Amino acid sequence: MSDFEAKGSPEGEQVVHAWEILSEKGLVECPVFDLVSRRLRHPVRGTEGDFYILKTRDWVNVIPVTSEFEVVMVRQYRFGIEESSWEIPGGIMDAGEDPVVAAERELREETGYVARASRLIGGVAANPAILNNRCHFVWAEGVTLESAVEWDEHEEIEVRLFPIDEVYAMAHRGEIKHSLVVAALFQFYPQWEKIKGRRRS
Amino acid sequence: MSDFEAKGSPEGEQVVHAWEILSEKGLVECPVFDLVSRRLRHPVRGTEGDFYILKTRDWVNVIPVTSEFEVVMVRQYRFGIEESSWEIPGGIMDAGEDPVVAAERELREETGYVARASRLIGGVAANPAILNNRCHFVWAEGVTLESAVEWDEHEEIEVRLFPIDEVYAMAHRGEIKHSLVVAALFQFYPQWEKIKGRRRS
Repeated sequence: MSDFEAKGSPEGEQVVHAWEILSEKGLVECPVFDLVSRRLRHPVRGTEGDFYILKTRDWVNVIPVTSEFEVVMVRQYRFGIEESSWEIPGGIMDAGEDPVVAAERELREETGYVARASRLIGGVAANPAILNNRCHFVWAEGVTLESAVEWDEHEEIEVRLFPIDEVYAMAHRGEIKHSLVVAALFQFYPQWEKIKGRRRS
Repeated sequence: MSDFEAKGSPEGEQVVHAWEILSEKGLVECPVFDLVSRRLRHPVRGTEGDFYILKTRDWVNVIPVTSEFEVVMVRQYRFGIEESSWEIPGGIMDAGEDPVVAAERELREETGYVARASRLIGGVAANPAILNNRCHFVWAEGVTLESAVEWDEHEEIEVRLFPIDEVYAMAHRGEIKHSLVVAALFQFYPQWEKIKGRRRS
């Protein structure tokens, strides 16, 4: 049972069929993903088709929150949309790496911030139609600026703190536009409501 | 100014630089996207690199809500994760198609439901790092089952209604796992709170 299947559907019934993989062919190896084509067959209809999949390692996105309830946000130029984008830190996990460890590594490398404690709060399939991987979401608590950044060769990152409520407002205004960051904010929201409840009481 | 840039950042200041495109080479044309490599140069550092981009048309996801405040959900087998996935209807827009028109078309083709009224409620960059496109989110109100489904060649779709609050609970439990569907639910939430407010008053 895979990581995805473990999450299950509301019931066990199988109405939608899993296709059989007849063959797979590697087409292009890129730094972030490998493009492969697969010949698949529907187990009941017997129909066949060629489908294109991007195989990649899991990704992690981290919501780094300071003791003042601000989020450490990063802005980078994004080559897909040819524009800069305000996001939470994140990246590609190393093979076999734990999501929490990967989150703390990416946070430190991109921003110099270090967490007092971190925990996995959820995750999504990055894009179930074309990507095979999961993006994990980690909440890093009590982060403080501790070290110099260690950017990858082509990285150029603006780091800035935003109050958590302002981060949600930015996402609702469309100023945070990365689908995975918006999904992370969705999954973090119950935690933020709990924090606000504790602060009021 | 592009669609993305119009959404802006919290301020106009340009700290993160846009890279210059020196050349582009098409590598593989797939049904959903074309893989291209681009030679890019940083305008200040002068460093160069090869980057891989997936070029595709915009996508649309539709949140179809009945008069009983249920969402029309679809379950399909997803070739990327090799599992089935509960999602909202959606798909690739035709060239030049309006997101609302595309949403109503995808809704009808996948489920047979037709909307009384539809409106664009937002959208995200599908994945700003590797994809060049936007996924638009449309709210379809007062949907009713009116026509037979028109599935594409390889489609096999289970259709079921879920109360809106249950859809949010499924997403928070990880049972809705598609990043773009979770992002759509995030952007729809203020509308759902307004609806609930009106029902209570």
